Amino acid sequence: MKAQDYPQPVLELISRLKRMPGIGTRGAERFALWFLQQGRNDARALSAALQDAADSVGTCPECGFFSLKGERCTACEDPTRDASLFCVVEQPTDVLPIERCGSFRGLYHCLGGKISPLDGIMPEDLSVEHLLERVQAHPGCEVILAVGSDVEGEATALYLADRLSAVNCKITRIAQGIPAGAGLGHADAITLLRALEGRKQL
Amino acid sequence: MKAQDYPQPVLELISRLKRMPGIGTRGAERFALWFLQQGRNDARALSAALQDAADSVGTCPECGFFSLKGERCTACEDPTRDASLFCVVEQPTDVLPIERCGSFRGLYHCLGGKISPLDGIMPEDLSVEHLLERVQAHPGCEVILAVGSDVEGEATALYLADRLSAVNCKITRIAQGIPAGAGLGHADAITLLRALEGRKQL
Repeated sequence: MKAQDYPQPVLELISRLKRMPGIGTRGAERFALWFLQQGRNDARALSAALQDAADSVGTCPECGFFSLKGERCTACEDPTRDASLFCVVEQPTDVLPIERCGSFRGLYHCLGGKISPLDGIMPEDLSVEHLLERVQAHPGCEVILAVGSDVEGEATALYLADRLSAVNCKITRIAQGIPAGAGLGHADAITLLRALEGRKQL
Repeated sequence: MKAQDYPQPVLELISRLKRMPGIGTRGAERFALWFLQQGRNDARALSAALQDAADSVGTCPECGFFSLKGERCTACEDPTRDASLFCVVEQPTDVLPIERCGSFRGLYHCLGGKISPLDGIMPEDLSVEHLLERVQAHPGCEVILAVGSDVEGEATALYLADRLSAVNCKITRIAQGIPAGAGLGHADAITLLRALEGRKQL
């Protein structure tokens, strides 16, 4: 007797869903059965959305954020944005968190990563030369280095500050300190040290 | 100034992923960005798997489990299975948990739900007549009622037992009691009551 199992297309669907981050066999099986029991419209709609996203989403040639293939992103297309203010981030996924805080009115630049020799990522793997070109085209602009505060992020910020020092621009780094709404008890020593160093007069 | 947002195909993908059970906006965004940053092969493969599953997976005309469209499921096709032993479950998704416990060698019958007048599900909405036909074709067979032990499950089991009593078959119900590996401290009163009632001599 052969043990009953799902038909092959269901097994294939489960194995594909299982590749998504944080989804295990149980979760993938749950999703697959949900798609099959839902009528088939949700499965077809997600299938089409995946195909469309894979085909039509590209990278903005200016800043590296997501855009429609061959087009610039909405921020780079927006003439009301402050073109003399650049916010440099590691990944395109870092753009929307900043955008959502609502106070930044300039342009972005996605490096595509951070300097990390242990992972084989060197400065020439990042979008640095293009950043220098963009900054040079706006003399006197401000470049905010909004890369992470881990070791690789700091190394990347130092490297960029060094490269940008040859260009006529103001270089700034986002503040480090305690997160909003957090007590001091949960902050680690380095965070507290930097919060103290970065103190402001009220 | 318009706030930067993802291109339309990414927003569509996020909204489609968000429809999956237990996935919120954050999770859907994480999946969508993962698909976009992964190269596009995972997105295309999942898209194809969804399409294929939606198109080619149907329901076994005998038992109601998943099968390739127009075909019977592997259990109903398997001549080595015991055709005089039926296991009646609510949903096709209940089949594999039983199959995986490894001791059942008979055939399945998926009702397609349980009697629940409050949800508008009446006996005629379930695959009851077809069950009676299958059972009648195997005089003297055993029908295991493996529906749930909630109120609707019990009502469904009682209804089926009544209908099946007119047919030459042995009707059984899966045991209720404390789950394997659980202490008595976590069992509710009704579970303990049924575990006591169902006690067996050792």
